Amino acid sequence: MNETTNRPRVAFQGERGAFSEEAALRLLGDEIQLVPRPSFESLFAAINEGLADYALAPLENSLAGSVQRSYDLLLEHSLHIVGEVIIPISHSLISCPGATFESIRTIESHPVALAHCLRFLGAHPQIRPLATEDTAGSVAQVVRRGDRTCAAIAGKRAAEVYGGVVLLEHLEDHEENYTRFVLLTSSTVLSDEANKLSLIIKLPDGAGTLYHALEPFARHGLNLLKLESRPIRGRPWEYYFYLDLQASTKDKKVEDALAELNERASEVRILGCYPSARVTQTETSTH
Amino acid sequence: MNETTNRPRVAFQGERGAFSEEAALRLLGDEIQLVPRPSFESLFAAINEGLADYALAPLENSLAGSVQRSYDLLLEHSLHIVGEVIIPISHSLISCPGATFESIRTIESHPVALAHCLRFLGAHPQIRPLATEDTAGSVAQVVRRGDRTCAAIAGKRAAEVYGGVVLLEHLEDHEENYTRFVLLTSSTVLSDEANKLSLIIKLPDGAGTLYHALEPFARHGLNLLKLESRPIRGRPWEYYFYLDLQASTKDKKVEDALAELNERASEVRILGCYPSARVTQTETSTH
Repeated sequence: MNETTNRPRVAFQGERGAFSEEAALRLLGDEIQLVPRPSFESLFAAINEGLADYALAPLENSLAGSVQRSYDLLLEHSLHIVGEVIIPISHSLISCPGATFESIRTIESHPVALAHCLRFLGAHPQIRPLATEDTAGSVAQVVRRGDRTCAAIAGKRAAEVYGGVVLLEHLEDHEENYTRFVLLTSSTVLSDEANKLSLIIKLPDGAGTLYHALEPFARHGLNLLKLESRPIRGRPWEYYFYLDLQASTKDKKVEDALAELNERASEVRILGCYPSARVTQTETSTH
Repeated sequence: MNETTNRPRVAFQGERGAFSEEAALRLLGDEIQLVPRPSFESLFAAINEGLADYALAPLENSLAGSVQRSYDLLLEHSLHIVGEVIIPISHSLISCPGATFESIRTIESHPVALAHCLRFLGAHPQIRPLATEDTAGSVAQVVRRGDRTCAAIAGKRAAEVYGGVVLLEHLEDHEENYTRFVLLTSSTVLSDEANKLSLIIKLPDGAGTLYHALEPFARHGLNLLKLESRPIRGRPWEYYFYLDLQASTKDKKVEDALAELNERASEVRILGCYPSARVTQTETSTH
């Protein structure tokens, strides 16, 4: 934590008004200093560079799936997961004052947000989707340019922040649309409420190695919540596996299972043990 | 196959000169009719729409990982995998005649190609990367516009097809850069050389269900080559698992393992059993 203030500095990817900003406020409350970072790379580097005490990274969306870049950056950086938050994602079509839906020919947004709205985009072939770095940043640019043929897809919050006009709401293909973020920091903190364990493993070659690596967790009745694979750079068709388990390292059987896993995997790295988030669809942002 | 000609029509995503086109020619030879499709959606729809007999879809890159959209479209369409091909990916910087590297301020390419060249892009912050639909299509546009401040990242083949100028070669971060494509068609064909099995499974809730699903394959000594998870739409934090196994359904023990899997999974869909591709770094395209 920054010594000059009691308010922790929390980095997020994107600009003011981004879903990530909302996630940070929801997880940590208003008493934080928000540190917008332009890219995933600069987000993950923010702590080492002394710009932030924490970084909040999106790991997964319930429709689009894993955020592959975040998974790779988790591996590249030695940060620890100390918390998580899940927020509902609802997309609005936002343009500058004076624009109408009929005038729109281009829609700018982050590729994941565009992927959330494929049905809407498919139904309006006269509108060209354009991939950008950021949802809220696209709103900022669309409003600044004042071009009534352009709109952005982003959260409603961005319209308030930048003075945009909401033309349409709920563009997303599916209502059940959530993004899960993890809170990263440079030191390990084991909360009493920790009940979720994330780790990265690398397995030896051969048949059945993943099966054998999962065996200790299955035997101890520990629920595997997620399993993600990412390629090992320079070793085509070999993978790191990222495991999320319903487990706390304070639990003796988790300790035993990890000791057994260590014998079966060629590498094991614990990313963190932290309280899992629970957010329901009916919860809405109060920010 | 189209009755009016002996040459099968093979759809690929992208424009003339794309890596996908090279992959199709390498897998099937020159005696095919190439059917370029503008998007992954239209690629997967091409067979049902009567536009093609086969579709060649990229599933995975050895650096960037799984092509998530292809995995989701495999689930949505009832196509069968009947073959695969792996090609080395080497990226060149291509602009219009008259351009020099010093004049370039914008680089256009598909996001996966941009992701292959992060080190190069990071070393040249004066150049703005711009995500587009296609590698070769970006070359076509850059050459057509004749704007010497713009270049595209694509395979060298695209420079030949569109009359572009290669400014730099081998922009990729890692030499070991391959993309794996699968050949899809509407009917199942089981080749005698089939030695790779791809399937999608859905598991019941609870601890150890993935472990139990993998058990029959491990017991029979069948090698799990890849495991990918994709979110189930409308059911947040539940997943389909895509398995690639070193196995042929002609093998009795594979048949037994699949029968046991059927009892442990809530859904099992066989995507295909086909000959696996083997391509080494020293192989280069002859097209």
